[in-house]
Amino acid sequence: MSLARMGTELRCQCIKTESGFIPRRFIQNVQLFPSGPHCSNAEVIATLKSGQRVCLEPTAPWVERIIKKILEGSDRPESQL
Amino acid sequence: MSLARMGTELRCQCIKTESGFIPRRFIQNVQLFPSGPHCSNAEVIATLKSGQRVCLEPTAPWVERIIKKILEGSDRPESQL
Repeated sequence: MSLARMGTELRCQCIKTESGFIPRRFIQNVQLFPSGPHCSNAEVIATLKSGQRVCLEPTAPWVERIIKKILEGSDRPESQL
Repeated sequence: MSLARMGTELRCQCIKTESGFIPRRFIQNVQLFPSGPHCSNAEVIATLKSGQRVCLEPTAPWVERIIKKILEGSDRPESQL
C-alpha cells in the first residue's frame, strides 16, 4: 500500500497494491494513471475519506466494478459496492 | 470545462463537462469523484499533459472506453484511444 514520493509522476508511484476489497463508502476519489514512459503499468490510487492514499490493483475485478459504479453514478454510498 | 474552486470537495467541482473526445495520449491522469452528499452526480476530471484540468462526462461512451483502456494497461499512447 506504500506510495513512492508524489509530485510530477516521473516514475511508478505504487510500490505495492492493496488486493483487499475496500467498500466504496470509504473512497473519496480514485485517480487513474495510464502506463507511459514514466511507468510501464497503469496505476490506480484511491484516496480514502480518512485521507489515506491506497494503491489498488488496476485489473482486480472489484476495482473495475467500483469504477464502473462510480461512473454510472449508481453507487449508493451505503451499499457494499 | 470550467472547474469550481478546488480544495476539499464540499460541492460539485464541475460546472460544465467537455463532451468532445480527447485522445488518450493527451491525458496524464483521470480522477473519479463518486456522487455523495457534496455533489449529487459523479464527476470525472482529466488532467492533461499540458497541465489543464478538464471535466469529462462520466457516462460518455468514449470516457468509459478510455478508462477501461487505462485499467487494461493496453493503451498504446500513440493510438487514438
